[in-house]
Amino acid sequence: MLEKTTRMNFLFDFYQSLLTPKQRSYMELYYLEDYSLGEIAEEYEISRQAVYDNIKRTEAMLEEYEYKLLLFEKFQTRKQLINQCKELVKENEPLSRLLSELEKLE
Amino acid sequence: MLEKTTRMNFLFDFYQSLLTPKQRSYMELYYLEDYSLGEIAEEYEISRQAVYDNIKRTEAMLEEYEYKLLLFEKFQTRKQLINQCKELVKENEPLSRLLSELEKLE
Repeated sequence: MLEKTTRMNFLFDFYQSLLTPKQRSYMELYYLEDYSLGEIAEEYEISRQAVYDNIKRTEAMLEEYEYKLLLFEKFQTRKQLINQCKELVKENEPLSRLLSELEKLE
Repeated sequence: MLEKTTRMNFLFDFYQSLLTPKQRSYMELYYLEDYSLGEIAEEYEISRQAVYDNIKRTEAMLEEYEYKLLLFEKFQTRKQLINQCKELVKENEPLSRLLSELEKLE
């Protein structure tokens, strides 16, 4: 479950701009702020089942976007490569600075 | 016009997986293979206007995806940073190899 949560957090991070405001709100409460389905249902005055269905659909959408665009997978590969570069240039300050900028660019 | 074509080629490259097969076909013929609207209309036995409308809608979709995900913009920034790194490490072969791998990862 922890692994799934981490993955969903990353996928949400990469693709949240493609979701509707409502989808974004439910996902934020559930995955980032650790609300239960019941608490979200109460907050929005809808059924627990409706919240559950919405979140499941959103999770499937995020996986579908990842399947098509691979942003998370590429991010991981890029991170590995950048770390290897950093290992190789520990004493080279200007280059280390550029690599850090590259790393932030996700 | 050339600038717009280049931009559309890049946006198509980044977001084509989010288009329908029909949208992809028209864009490929128009932007990559340089067909005219009339030629595409003939090929698909539809009106020139229908082809035009479809391509205009697809262009707007690609711009909307870029507005939301910024893949092309980040690609350009990343490319600049990687080129600066390469300038700094011209004689360092292992690092140059890693940077080339990073560069291919778009």
